[in-house]
Amino acid sequence: MPHLTIEYSANLAAVADLDVVCRALHRAMLDTGLFELGAVRVRALAAAHYAVADLLPENAFAALVLRMGAGRSSDDKAKVGAHVFAEASKAFAPLFATPHFALTLEIIEIDPAFSWKKNAIHPRLRATKNGNSPEDKNV
Amino acid sequence: MPHLTIEYSANLAAVADLDVVCRALHRAMLDTGLFELGAVRVRALAAAHYAVADLLPENAFAALVLRMGAGRSSDDKAKVGAHVFAEASKAFAPLFATPHFALTLEIIEIDPAFSWKKNAIHPRLRATKNGNSPEDKNV
Amino acid sequence: MPHLTIEYSANLAAVADLDVVCRALHRAMLDTGLFELGAVRVRALAAAHYAVADLLPENAFAALVLRMGAGRSSDDKAKVGAHVFAEASKAFAPLFATPHFALTLEIIEIDPAFSWKKNAIHPRLRATKNGNSPEDKNV
Repeated sequence: MPHLTIEYSANLAAVADLDVVCRALHRAMLDTGLFELGAVRVRALAAAHYAVADLLPENAFAALVLRMGAGRSSDDKAKVGAHVFAEASKAFAPLFATPHFALTLEIIEIDPAFSWKKNAIHPRLRATKNGNSPEDKNV
Repeated sequence: MPHLTIEYSANLAAVADLDVVCRALHRAMLDTGLFELGAVRVRALAAAHYAVADLLPENAFAALVLRMGAGRSSDDKAKVGAHVFAEASKAFAPLFATPHFALTLEIIEIDPAFSWKKNAIHPRLRATKNGNSPEDKNV
Repeated sequence: MPHLTIEYSANLAAVADLDVVCRALHRAMLDTGLFELGAVRVRALAAAHYAVADLLPENAFAALVLRMGAGRSSDDKAKVGAHVFAEASKAFAPLFATPHFALTLEIIEIDPAFSWKKNAIHPRLRATKNGNSPEDKNV
């Protein structure tokens, strides 16, 4: 049940394609081999109002938070974080050529004792060759 | 001070009424008897950009996070979670008839040492018969 | 890397200027002397759908979550929280004259082991007199 939420200053939409970014990070999460296809949910939330650094109008940010189920090793979490962050850095590369952009990623674990889920996508994907069962990959 | 935030893929708005969902979950939280009326805040944040599972355009999700004050028992938290999730499942029932929807709920406690609040609604409701004082119900 | 996110019911925009609020809280964070200018990111996310307290249409809320790097003392965190909350209370003062508004603030620490960041604003600000290096202030 990995959830990747991208909060971003709305001015970013003028200089980056957030659909492309979402897809790039969706791909990055699958690259790691740690997540099942049917569980990956990447989304971007625009903040129409913001105040960033020295308040220049071109200052922009993307703040990524990845919430994932507990139980993976610290090594695996570090691997996921490093890879997703590297791909996010690529996706936003033109922004880093300016002195007006900041990117962050944070991983937070979901406490399984206080988590509920119901997924109607899994059965469809697990029944086809397109689906990746977690049993085929990692626990 | 219970906060229930629903992040959802914007395509969900075409097949579900988010105002109705917010009200159903507001009701579900009050049903538990653990929350004071004036403190319940349910809201839904649309993500205009997203990448879900196998990227079919009809793939949609709702990701609920309930942040509530610490101090309740694990049993009470489990009860709240189970009830809110059951009511959310009902609210989104037509979606579960498709193979394109995923629902999650997570409960997170708020650390009272690093929490501040000011509520101008409480005095109004506590002064009337409509208000539910927490002293009347549960601690 | 302090992140301040304001979730608010969309009806608040009719009675408060969220750009002004973002700037006031940006100022409040810098006032504390604990954060570097180039790292401060304040933003507001509107919830178009919500259900608050007794469901009067004028019921509104702002829910602030400040995520900041770990390592500061509890005293410093309490000082930051109290100051940001006091300034938020001022920014929303007209709302507290009504019985329809609720404000909260929560501070959450970011686990440095699972945090990644890249900031193109820092070099620009650190190179000028406008920048505040953390070494000049607090650790």
